[in-house]
Amino acid sequence: MSEPEPESESAPQSINVVLPDGSELEVAPDATVQDCAYEIGPGLGRDTVAGKLDGELVAKEAPVYDEARLEIVTDQSDEYLDVLRHSAAHCLAQAVERHFDDVKLAIGPPTEEGFYYDFDDLEVDESDFSALEAEIEDIIEADYDIEREEVSVAEAEERLADEPYKLELLDELAEEGEQVTFYNQGEWEDLCAGPHLESTGEIGVVKLLEIAGAYWRGDEENPMQTRIYGTAFEEESDLEDYLERREEAKERDHRKIGNEMDLFSIQDVTGPGLPLYHPPGKTILRELEGFVEDLNEDAGYDYVETPHVFKTDLWHKSGHYENYEDDMFIFDVGDDEFGLKPMNCPGHAAIFQDHSWSYRDLPIRYAENGKVYRKEQRGELSGLSRVWAFTIDDGHLFVRPDQIEREVEAIMDVIDEVLSTFDLEYEVALATRPEKSVGSDEIWDKAEAQLESVLEKRNVDYDLEAGDGAFYGPKIDYAFEDAIGRHWDGPTVQLDFNMPDRFDLDYVGEDNEAHEPVMIHRALYGSYERFFMMLIEHYEGNFPFWLAPEQVRVLPISDDNLGYAHRVANEFGDFRTEVDHRDSTLERKIRAAHDDRVPYQIIVGDNEEEAGTISVRDRFEDQEYDVEIDEFQGHLEAERDEKRSAPDFLAD
Amino acid sequence: MSEPEPESESAPQSINVVLPDGSELEVAPDATVQDCAYEIGPGLGRDTVAGKLDGELVAKEAPVYDEARLEIVTDQSDEYLDVLRHSAAHCLAQAVERHFDDVKLAIGPPTEEGFYYDFDDLEVDESDFSALEAEIEDIIEADYDIEREEVSVAEAEERLADEPYKLELLDELAEEGEQVTFYNQGEWEDLCAGPHLESTGEIGVVKLLEIAGAYWRGDEENPMQTRIYGTAFEEESDLEDYLERREEAKERDHRKIGNEMDLFSIQDVTGPGLPLYHPPGKTILRELEGFVEDLNEDAGYDYVETPHVFKTDLWHKSGHYENYEDDMFIFDVGDDEFGLKPMNCPGHAAIFQDHSWSYRDLPIRYAENGKVYRKEQRGELSGLSRVWAFTIDDGHLFVRPDQIEREVEAIMDVIDEVLSTFDLEYEVALATRPEKSVGSDEIWDKAEAQLESVLEKRNVDYDLEAGDGAFYGPKIDYAFEDAIGRHWDGPTVQLDFNMPDRFDLDYVGEDNEAHEPVMIHRALYGSYERFFMMLIEHYEGNFPFWLAPEQVRVLPISDDNLGYAHRVANEFGDFRTEVDHRDSTLERKIRAAHDDRVPYQIIVGDNEEEAGTISVRDRFEDQEYDVEIDEFQGHLEAERDEKRSAPDFLAD
Repeated sequence: MSEPEPESESAPQSINVVLPDGSELEVAPDATVQDCAYEIGPGLGRDTVAGKLDGELVAKEAPVYDEARLEIVTDQSDEYLDVLRHSAAHCLAQAVERHFDDVKLAIGPPTEEGFYYDFDDLEVDESDFSALEAEIEDIIEADYDIEREEVSVAEAEERLADEPYKLELLDELAEEGEQVTFYNQGEWEDLCAGPHLESTGEIGVVKLLEIAGAYWRGDEENPMQTRIYGTAFEEESDLEDYLERREEAKERDHRKIGNEMDLFSIQDVTGPGLPLYHPPGKTILRELEGFVEDLNEDAGYDYVETPHVFKTDLWHKSGHYENYEDDMFIFDVGDDEFGLKPMNCPGHAAIFQDHSWSYRDLPIRYAENGKVYRKEQRGELSGLSRVWAFTIDDGHLFVRPDQIEREVEAIMDVIDEVLSTFDLEYEVALATRPEKSVGSDEIWDKAEAQLESVLEKRNVDYDLEAGDGAFYGPKIDYAFEDAIGRHWDGPTVQLDFNMPDRFDLDYVGEDNEAHEPVMIHRALYGSYERFFMMLIEHYEGNFPFWLAPEQVRVLPISDDNLGYAHRVANEFGDFRTEVDHRDSTLERKIRAAHDDRVPYQIIVGDNEEEAGTISVRDRFEDQEYDVEIDEFQGHLEAERDEKRSAPDFLAD
Repeated sequence: MSEPEPESESAPQSINVVLPDGSELEVAPDATVQDCAYEIGPGLGRDTVAGKLDGELVAKEAPVYDEARLEIVTDQSDEYLDVLRHSAAHCLAQAVERHFDDVKLAIGPPTEEGFYYDFDDLEVDESDFSALEAEIEDIIEADYDIEREEVSVAEAEERLADEPYKLELLDELAEEGEQVTFYNQGEWEDLCAGPHLESTGEIGVVKLLEIAGAYWRGDEENPMQTRIYGTAFEEESDLEDYLERREEAKERDHRKIGNEMDLFSIQDVTGPGLPLYHPPGKTILRELEGFVEDLNEDAGYDYVETPHVFKTDLWHKSGHYENYEDDMFIFDVGDDEFGLKPMNCPGHAAIFQDHSWSYRDLPIRYAENGKVYRKEQRGELSGLSRVWAFTIDDGHLFVRPDQIEREVEAIMDVIDEVLSTFDLEYEVALATRPEKSVGSDEIWDKAEAQLESVLEKRNVDYDLEAGDGAFYGPKIDYAFEDAIGRHWDGPTVQLDFNMPDRFDLDYVGEDNEAHEPVMIHRALYGSYERFFMMLIEHYEGNFPFWLAPEQVRVLPISDDNLGYAHRVANEFGDFRTEVDHRDSTLERKIRAAHDDRVPYQIIVGDNEEEAGTISVRDRFEDQEYDVEIDEFQGHLEAERDEKRSAPDFLAD
């Protein structure tokens, strides 16, 4: 080891930051985010609210460093709302401390839809919201300056003597440096890295939403604290839009509809994050399974089946153990360690590896509706959207490098069919090689070129997310937009140059040498649980005919028509058909069928019985009399087989 | 507490044992098994080899006890072979100790097909078998008396000073009483409860079969010992028959065929007892799944889906925890304990319980292809026949007591269809109320009467196994007989009066009161893994057309016919069809298709191409020329849809 050079001699005269357009900006070694903005232009300097350094949101006072990717955040940036909401969270904490004594502060970050603040020793309920909101309004109107202050750890300890949770955070920060930052506004201050607005007057409107329990640091072993959720916007009209969407989303909440339609349950005795599918829910799942199974078979996939439990040797081999250990369910049997699978791919690689292959055999395409297990924090679990066990409609292809383009194209054909079947809007992104990655330049270049070529050829309007690929390969990701404009992870196509290497996969090429195949990970729905949840909310439970658990209900007008009703129901035995045999009025039966979201009601009274016909009614209160049974059957067959997205007999 | 009466006064003058015909025999309080036999008749007394007391095989010298169910074992009994083989195991140990020094003895019981003896510190391989067999023959010819001896524990300890494993067994026996038994023959003796033959000369013929490793007491934490397997019969001809069947079974071994046909693998890196299904195996499984799914849907079952992991609270509630804890895979998450499910029924009960039901809603029938997990000892795991994770085609019905008969009858209709589809011979047994049981006399009597009534009505030839029902209800069990005469557990129909009680299940009756439903557990295949294994061996891999992973293979006679071969293959796209495009002779292609067990080969040469026809060949080397394509297609559709048990186009 050589002696380190004295610092004065080695200190650089300048450093470079990388701007979003890829250009480099030379600045002084002690430059801050805002200094850089002023270098770009004085207008941008003045407008700077915060910065992003290598993707992380930081205060405008934060120093930049050599080779950092820098973005300047102004009030025109997407991130501005995060800064605004972070400041709103501070106002909430300030208002709480004005109203309640001896409250202990935990943390208060912005979230996707607003912000929250966690408190201990706070007894509060929603009846306090109007007083707190009024107090927050006062704080905003007072337009306090929000001041950033650097203080020593020792000084911070003194200031936070009564705040045990903040002291715990301070302890960790103290390991990183000798200075920490505080933000203060009026009489109130908080240990906080920022960034924040310049003054509370810039916040706009704040609305408190709900109270929940939350474990300190998300860990069940820690005490449960009180979390107050709120949201904030610059404009009142944006808040109103948001509250309307939130109300709409609540109406569509899959837990509510799931319960009304008896689709699934999550029970205390069976465990958290582990849904039980009841017959109507499983009926929909089976239709969804059948649809991808048909698509996969047509596309030349072979189904395989792998266990849910594996020796952890497999996860060491695949590399998942290092990355997923904390999220895996792991247990010992004898001297060996076993785990529930967090991924299906290593099992498929093990099947591929159990065989020898020639270049002529490739591509090999395996499919499995494979259940995977990820140990999310229990506080994070929610309905079907966050669960411990979910099923992926997983596909893994083992292809020659020259087959990538054709296979990706075939996958995108299938994805298009899925997307159009469910009437889902979507966005597409191509993510390319990140700085840290495995695999040769040659294979990355070849693969990326093939992916781009497919996207161009198909005229797909996609975002290029340069450097955002996985370390093991580039990928194409779809994001769904549902009926009320929310976005969800959609299908994905990921190339993988890593797994074939770790599993020593090979095939014999035309040259009689061993070659490494490329693996493609591909999912259409992704997680069945998540997709099912999204469909419930997307359709508000009014599933298309082919998916509806009960497709047709026959309503006899009076008990005299019960026999005819059953004969008619028999004629519709190819569909999921029930007879409402309850002793009730027709009006009530119609309302019940509507509430149960049955696509079609067949109403039969004396007239229909005499004529041997039926009356048909849909969920939208349209009705047609004197319909021939076989005419309606024919329509239903077409509606089912074509997987039409909404019942349309009466719209014909 | 009152003082106990002096023993002399309370000792009974006689006790009663229950004979197989249900009659009671009064004997002296110190009577042995053989004493009882002499009471019945002097001939039987002389012929007594051993006895069975409440189902347990014991020596003829064993004392009986009051109310014991007693069977006398003679050389005409099924159990005689067990006694003979137990004695043969002793001869093996004696021969081993004559040939090898310092061997330590473990245990040596009879098994279903023979016997084994476990040894420690023994270096032996199969080349030693002829010498050991010759030694055993000498022991048999010497016709040593096999003498039973009762000795004190202290005395036994001295005799076994050099036998650490025997001492461990002795320790446990010492807790039960002060005397233990030894059996000796010639210079050799063993701590052993018996029973045994009178002399080594009665043994007949002995054959050693193989050597395997086995953990002491089946526990992997213990040292691995050397197990020698053998078998024994009274007659040479029976041995020869057995060895022939064994050879046949080896040829049919599902592990061998599974490997040849690429059906499944069990790999070190993925773990023991956890099969991976490869595409051809999963194809067969999917056909099997589809078959029961169709049957279940026609029979009015609703599919549900339950997680593989549950909080153990569920297993405490169901009572499985007490009975299955040691066989369950259990792990903690936070403060809660979770386990992989060993049974599907509690999950189904939890779904039923999540709903309120009226008497009109019943029966409710849930079905699930539900994976269950049972932690068998690793040494016991074998191919698909003993695994850690297996899938049951599970069905659970919740019925009113008056619906039992109709539902059981419907279940037996479906079972008949399964049995006839696979051409399986079977036996049926009805097992009724055991001594320890839950549920009222009324419900047991009603239920048993309904089961008997179904069996009588259907003219089923069944064994009545009185007292062999589960504690929770009576049951009907089927046992398969496969193509080479082996028996396997088959479908089962079990009534359950316990689970509804534990889960507080109820429905509102016509009387507006809450009533408890009866639960029926029902499986057609039982375990898919076990059934699949049995089918592989039953068919020797030559699956019926509807199950065959590859159904049709097109063989072009020369490369010139390759184009026509592909066009023909396209015509058979509704079936699993491949083209043999290898550059090889027709003879080799035919042999390869035969080895791959493809039901039909389509051979196409210039003649066929010119005429637009095909030649068809089956696995039995029958061939027909000049077949019209649509004629053969029509045949295949019928053969598949009717699930015919063997390809029969050329047998028409």
